[in-house]
Amino acid sequence: MRSDIPVTVLIRPQMGENIGAAARAMWNFGLDRMRVVAPRDGWPNPKAVAMASGAGRVLDEAQHYDDLDAAIADCTHVYATTARPRELTKPVMTPEAAMRDAAARIAAGERVAVMFGPERAGMENADIARATTIVTVPVNPEFPSLNLAQCVLLMGYEWRRATEEAPETRLEGQRTELAERQEIDALGAHWEERLDEAGFFYPETKAEGMRQNLRSLLARLPLTRADVQMLHGVMRQMVRWKDRG
Amino acid sequence: MRSDIPVTVLIRPQMGENIGAAARAMWNFGLDRMRVVAPRDGWPNPKAVAMASGAGRVLDEAQHYDDLDAAIADCTHVYATTARPRELTKPVMTPEAAMRDAAARIAAGERVAVMFGPERAGMENADIARATTIVTVPVNPEFPSLNLAQCVLLMGYEWRRATEEAPETRLEGQRTELAERQEIDALGAHWEERLDEAGFFYPETKAEGMRQNLRSLLARLPLTRADVQMLHGVMRQMVRWKDRG
Repeated sequence: MRSDIPVTVLIRPQMGENIGAAARAMWNFGLDRMRVVAPRDGWPNPKAVAMASGAGRVLDEAQHYDDLDAAIADCTHVYATTARPRELTKPVMTPEAAMRDAAARIAAGERVAVMFGPERAGMENADIARATTIVTVPVNPEFPSLNLAQCVLLMGYEWRRATEEAPETRLEGQRTELAERQEIDALGAHWEERLDEAGFFYPETKAEGMRQNLRSLLARLPLTRADVQMLHGVMRQMVRWKDRG
Repeated sequence: MRSDIPVTVLIRPQMGENIGAAARAMWNFGLDRMRVVAPRDGWPNPKAVAMASGAGRVLDEAQHYDDLDAAIADCTHVYATTARPRELTKPVMTPEAAMRDAAARIAAGERVAVMFGPERAGMENADIARATTIVTVPVNPEFPSLNLAQCVLLMGYEWRRATEEAPETRLEGQRTELAERQEIDALGAHWEERLDEAGFFYPETKAEGMRQNLRSLLARLPLTRADVQMLHGVMRQMVRWKDRG
């Protein structure tokens, strides 16, 4: 069994559909270690399997427990996801901070679990007392109702963010090589020459400012080599059209 | 109409239930400006209303358009959420980077939209061509299937993260004041004295190390004042019990 990811513990889940949706949400972000504690409708659950399509393996390999203590017995650090503040004194983390913390702990050899309560009632204080840390999603206080699978999804998303090096911004496409400055310059020169012939820079007193604005505009755009070729082509075509006229 | 949040644009959504679930996901994170472009089953959609319970106002105030250009006509910056790489050349951002970017643009007076494609097919290239930027959720490549409401949820979550100052970790509870070091010391001294009387630090050769370990343990725990009182009480009670014996 993999120990490089957190265990996802569903405490007394009610609807099979929600268990299946949670399995899908887990697998969306590469999590596949589910433990199910005292599910209302027994185990295995055919409705969970039907809902989990594509993530059925998560359910096949899920472990079933009668009580929570057994489900987290081998864990060293346990997060409880709950929206409501409790009288219990615990550190409360955002999902991001919690999953970064979890990633650091797992890297150091700890065994980590993330617990989710039943759909309606949420976790009881007796469940939360088992946790080392509470995780609360910063929802709209006017409408804090996240369902089980949504909550699992957000934790999985943050887990993946904490463990995956993804560039924050990249340029994507088949011809994404950005143009070099000399190519931008050549484009500007081409356009400027033709526009000058066309009488664009008029009146004389404003011509210099207009030339600068044109060059500045082209310099500011994140043009690829393909873009530059197309803009050359645009200008050539206008000239051809004029010449044909 | 509020202009301090992004507009959420649903392009040709199919199932009313998904539109309702998207409305709920938006409102979970305080977003309530929905625009619906050419929904398959017309507008308004009773199934959307039934599903949106608690977030019905988002649908009541949603705007309906026949085509995408009209829906984003008043926007200055448009994000397209799509999982698949396209031949179009665009910057691709993570949800976090995109919503931070969106927050900065809105603060500077821009009007921002986030577009979501239809459930099965996703956005067409003609839709994506309207976008200034693509947003891709870093999902598990083996199982990248996020549904419409999940995608809306993750963008709303990142919007709220980008705009809400929430402490990453806080201590929550009714009596959360952390103990001062002198209180920890006093507790250590109390325990050490009683344990010494009880013959705990034995044999003599190991006593010093055992004392250090006890003090070190107490120093390492994030004890609140209430915790310290309880641990004093524990020790006092053990002594009382012994005295009664």
